[in-house]
This record gives sequence, structure tokens and C-alpha cells, in this order.
Amino acid sequence: MKVLVLGGDGYLGWPTSMHLSAHGHEVMAVDNYLRRRLSREEDSEALFEVPNLHRRAQLWQEKSGKSIAVRVGDICDWDFLAGLFGEFRPDALIHYAEQPSAPYSMKNRAAAGLTLQNNVMATFNVIQAVHEFAPECHIVKLGTMGEYGTPNIDIEEGWIDIEHKGRRQKFLFPRAAGSLYHTTKVLDTDLLWFYVRTWGLRVTDLMQGPVYGLETYENRGDESLYPFFNYDELWGTVINRFLVQAVAGYPLTVYGKGGQTRGYLDLRDTLQCLRLSVEHPAQAGELRIFNQFVETFSVNTLAEMVQASGRRHGIEVKVNNLPNPRKELEEHYYNPAHTGLLELGLQPHRLTPERMDEMLSVIQRYKDRIRTDCIFRNVRWNR
Amino acid sequence: MKVLVLGGDGYLGWPTSMHLSAHGHEVMAVDNYLRRRLSREEDSEALFEVPNLHRRAQLWQEKSGKSIAVRVGDICDWDFLAGLFGEFRPDALIHYAEQPSAPYSMKNRAAAGLTLQNNVMATFNVIQAVHEFAPECHIVKLGTMGEYGTPNIDIEEGWIDIEHKGRRQKFLFPRAAGSLYHTTKVLDTDLLWFYVRTWGLRVTDLMQGPVYGLETYENRGDESLYPFFNYDELWGTVINRFLVQAVAGYPLTVYGKGGQTRGYLDLRDTLQCLRLSVEHPAQAGELRIFNQFVETFSVNTLAEMVQASGRRHGIEVKVNNLPNPRKELEEHYYNPAHTGLLELGLQPHRLTPERMDEMLSVIQRYKDRIRTDCIFRNVRWNR
Repeated sequence: MKVLVLGGDGYLGWPTSMHLSAHGHEVMAVDNYLRRRLSREEDSEALFEVPNLHRRAQLWQEKSGKSIAVRVGDICDWDFLAGLFGEFRPDALIHYAEQPSAPYSMKNRAAAGLTLQNNVMATFNVIQAVHEFAPECHIVKLGTMGEYGTPNIDIEEGWIDIEHKGRRQKFLFPRAAGSLYHTTKVLDTDLLWFYVRTWGLRVTDLMQGPVYGLETYENRGDESLYPFFNYDELWGTVINRFLVQAVAGYPLTVYGKGGQTRGYLDLRDTLQCLRLSVEHPAQAGELRIFNQFVETFSVNTLAEMVQASGRRHGIEVKVNNLPNPRKELEEHYYNPAHTGLLELGLQPHRLTPERMDEMLSVIQRYKDRIRTDCIFRNVRWNR
Repeated sequence: MKVLVLGGDGYLGWPTSMHLSAHGHEVMAVDNYLRRRLSREEDSEALFEVPNLHRRAQLWQEKSGKSIAVRVGDICDWDFLAGLFGEFRPDALIHYAEQPSAPYSMKNRAAAGLTLQNNVMATFNVIQAVHEFAPECHIVKLGTMGEYGTPNIDIEEGWIDIEHKGRRQKFLFPRAAGSLYHTTKVLDTDLLWFYVRTWGLRVTDLMQGPVYGLETYENRGDESLYPFFNYDELWGTVINRFLVQAVAGYPLTVYGKGGQTRGYLDLRDTLQCLRLSVEHPAQAGELRIFNQFVETFSVNTLAEMVQASGRRHGIEVKVNNLPNPRKELEEHYYNPAHTGLLELGLQPHRLTPERMDEMLSVIQRYKDRIRTDCIFRNVRWNR
């Protein structure tokens, strides 16, 4: 299939592009390097330099013999986006092209405005371009489990049947997200759902949990093909960041009581989920929603797992319980459904001690590059 | 109280500004004339010219002895908005400053993009400005009953308690709007709800139905103080438009089966609802939602009521059933709650034959100004 990967330079975008290419799909990867620019501006560089997207595609071709087309530009620029559809008629597109950091979106007004503007208008342009140029194209959109927040009832897979005063109706499962970033994903879902109903678009919206990992089947042992790996509070997700903190001897930063529970998944499982979604398209007029994670952990449990892995490597890992800078429940019910992707064929990887140790060992190779002064960012939700 | 009326030049904004002024509030009315510009561009001029906002305020002062401050500018421009808070510390603000036409928002990509961009970023700026400059200021936001769509269960007043698998949670009542315009109001609600939870803003979100009418207690018999009165399919709401069509001998344009049912209210009741909301503020950290309408009618019923009024004026009114250009249910369940504003003291006006006849008589004075070639616009939802 011909697959357009928007945000193809990102932590997920580049591994996804290689993975789809390895599985015989024709990939065009598109990015405007917004993520690179912002992490540089914030002095939040990744653990190691990664080549630019053109260079990455060359390296991938040298390794695999397969080519990935690259275009650099901003999909909020209509002419650029329309041009992509002019030269590459995608069967599917993966829309990763959003500002992805929750703390960045809460940092100040300018960062919040950039996040809202970029994420909502990018999604709007994608919808319009598909309708105008490729109405059969399947939109695979990255949402987040964070759209749901932490309600006191079971989280179903995107939808809920409500019985109320003797009548019934199926609705989008109600959303209540925990940051502006997560809220922009709620707005995206609302926009997609409206245009699916109105124009009969085919959309898969993936409610993903936090991802961990660095190596995939495509880049294993080949550092030049690794994705960004951030470890600061702005851009680094919790498991990756905790592992770096452990290696650096920087106490793990647990916010508040640490009972915050989320659904996590291995980077390799993200790639499977995206590929399975692409290879099994939604129907015309269908907004198909999957909850994309493998297992749930509380922050305290993750901290204990990282401590245990540290012990096995002869590292003593401390934990520092900080006042919570976020506005969130620190102890809560959490029972989200996640069967749809398993039914499509997902073979999940689990966060075993072996996996933890393997990641920790890779990070140890980069120990000298870790800048501990960049980790703590103190972005408070209520500034 | 000091009240900032954003969108103070509009069909609701100007009557609201006068009404609050008449009731002793200190009003600053703000507008960027977007609505005037768009209706001119679309050749959808109102039934009569209205003076500009500065001139209107002068006329109001001459009539009432009360002053309304006027500022012309765009609240999507942060510096302009911040400047308003610098010179006028509002106790409350009314946020009407959005592109208000559903068909306009479905006309083409440019109109859709303008609607989304303007409405979402205006609301974002309002939230940021209140948080930064006047955190106690009560935001009274105009939403729409259209946010809910037409679900098969009773529509509650903004919120619903869901019992699911033996557990309970209160959620925003799920939204599923019928146009991009209505969807931008859903996005606004999501944004407001996020920042209410996070920053403790005080917000009243008014889910309003279509408004009809022209004369209020403040402008009665004084044409120079009338609001815009549009009668085309882009800017004219259904009752106003049907009355003009009746006077002009232009058959009433009923879409599809005509069973589409909505909650309507008299312009004078909108003013009461806004004033009551302002005078009884929401609590800090409260998103208070009211369903703002007085009675429900189907389109067929409205057409019959206009026909009857026509007969009483010696006019034969025809009905033309057109293929529905919209995507909507033409026969559906509709039972929305609307008790909150009555409890605050709303004294509703009903759409009696007398009221209908009164409006028809006013419009008859302008019969020569009606341009029947502007009425039908053929904006199809699925272009």
C-alpha cells in the first residue's frame, strides 16, 4: 500500500516509516522538523544526535535496499499538503504531525497557543485534503488514552452505549483530558467524528498510552537508525526518562503519591498497531477507535521496576517524591478496554525484567551524554 | 457590574449591550466587524443598514442617557485583547465573538478554516486573558443547543450521570454537532472545561437554540437601534427568514421532511438569559451549563405558523419542500431539559400568533428592500 506518514521524523514516525517499508509498503515520510526546533529551543536535546530525515532515508536504503520518499514541509501550509496528494496518491495516511508534549503545552501561553493552533489546524487540513484529493484514503490518526482522563467507570474502546430514562444511544466515550496537549487530541477526535458523519471518511483513531523503547526489529544495533530519545520532563515519556535518570544517578521524580496509572506499550507494539490498522482499513463512514496499549502500571510500580533493574546492574536508584506540578488524580480507578488491536493480530511485547535490563544496557552506552541539569523542568499546570 | 461584550456588534451582541446598559451595568462592546465583512462578501446584506458600533453607542446615549464604551479590533490579536483588560477590568465578559453561520462553515474549505481558526483561537485567547489579567472574571460563553445534535435520549442540561457496569461518573453530556460551526462550539466547550478544571475559572456556557425577533424593550420602534436582520440561508435563522420569505411571496424552503425539531427563543429572552447569567455568576472552578431556549418546534410547525400569520395579513404563503442540503435527521426524538434559566428567573416570551403577527408587520415595512435572489444559497453539506 502507499502510505503517507505525516510527522515521519518523530519518535514514532521514523520507526513507523521503516517498519512499513520493511513490510513492503511504499512510504512517503513528511515532517517540518517542528519537534527538533522546539526541543532545541527548550534545551531538551535527545540522548544522541539523529541524522536528518533525508539522510535517514538514505541510510535505510543502504541497509534494507528499500526506499522511503522524504518531503520536508508544514502540513498546516495547504499548498504544501495539497502538493503531497498531487504527487503521491496514498491508500492510507498516518497522522502523527502534532506537537506531542503535555508539559510543553502547559508551559506558557505561547507554547499553548502553538500546540492548539498546530494540532487542530493540521488535523483540519488533513481532513480537507483527503476529502478533496483522495476520499478513499484511510486516515490513521494518533490520539491518546489521555483523552479519556481517569473516570470512575470502565473506559470502553472509544464508544459507550448509554441507557438513560428508558432510551438508548451510542456516543463517543466522554473525554476529559489532563493537559492542553491531550485536549487538542480530544478536539481532533471531535473534528474527525464530525467529518466522518458528514463526508463518510474512513478513519482509525488510536488512543495510545505512553510508549517506551528505542530498538525495533528494523534498527536493532544500528544507532544511526534510532529514533529521538528524549529524557527530560518536557519530551521524555516516563519509562524512558526513569531509565536515563537511573543510569545518571538522578533520583526518579515521582509526582505526588505516584498512584497515577496509565496503559503503556513497547515501541515495537506501536509499529505493529499502526501497520495492522493500515492493513485492515476502517470502512467508509466509520470512525474506528482502538485503545492502544498493552499493560497498565502505576508510576510507583514503574519506579520499583527501574530500581530493580538498576540493582541487577549494580546501580542504586533513589526515588524523590515531588509535589505534583500537574493537576491529576494521584490515586484512581483505571480499567480501560483494549481488545480491538489484539483481535487484529497484535502480538504484544511485555515490560519484563529482561526488556527493562536490555533498555538500561543500551542507555548505559550513552551515560556520558546525559545532561542531568536538563531533566527537571518544573512546568506547573497552575502557573 | 462591569461587563465586556465581545462580539458586541452582532445580532445578539448589540441588543445585549443595550439591555445590560439599561439595567445599570457598565458595558464595553467590542467587535472586529467580521460578521459585517463576511455578509457583504457573500452578498447577504441585512434587511436594512445599521449604523456602525460607535454611532450606535452615540444613538443609545442620546436615547437613554447611558454610555456604552466601544472598541473595534480582533480578539484573536492578543495585544488588542490584553489592552482591553488593561483599561477595563471586567467582572464578567460575554463571549459572542465567533463566526455564527452553520451554512457558511460548510460552504468551502476557506470558510470552514476561517470558522475553525477564528472560533477556537478567540475562545483560547479569552481563557488566557482572563487567567492572566482577571482570574475572578466570570466568562459567559455562547454555545449552542446544536452541540448536542439530536440523540435518541433526553438531553440533560450540559451534564449526564452515567452508570456503567456498577460504577458511576458525571460527564459532559456527549456532543455530536451537525455542522462545522456547531462543532467549533463543541471544541470551545472542551477547551473551557479543561481550563475550568485546571485553573478554576468561573464559566457559564449557554447552549442556545435559534433566536427570532427584532424588537426588544430597548429598541422598540427605533429602527436606528435595531440589530442586523438577515434573511438569507447563510445568516438568517429560520423563523426570521421564513417571515421575510412570506412577506416577499417567496415559498418557505423546508429541507426534506421538515420534522427537524429545535428549541427556539425570543430575542428578548436571550437578553434576559444573558443578564441573569451575568448577575448570578458561576462559582470559581464551575462550568455551569444552561440549555437556553423556551419552546421546541419542528420546521413544519414553524412553516404552518408563518402560513397562518400570512393568512391573517392577507398573504398566501406557499411551502417548497426541497431536497435536504444538510446532513441531519429529518424525524427524530427531541426532549432537552431547560430548567436552569427558569430557576434564575427567566420570564419567557412565547411564540404566540400575536408575536408572529407583530414581527410580520415590522417586516412588511421593509418589503421593498427584500432581495429574493439572495435567499436561496444552496450550500450542500456534502460538496
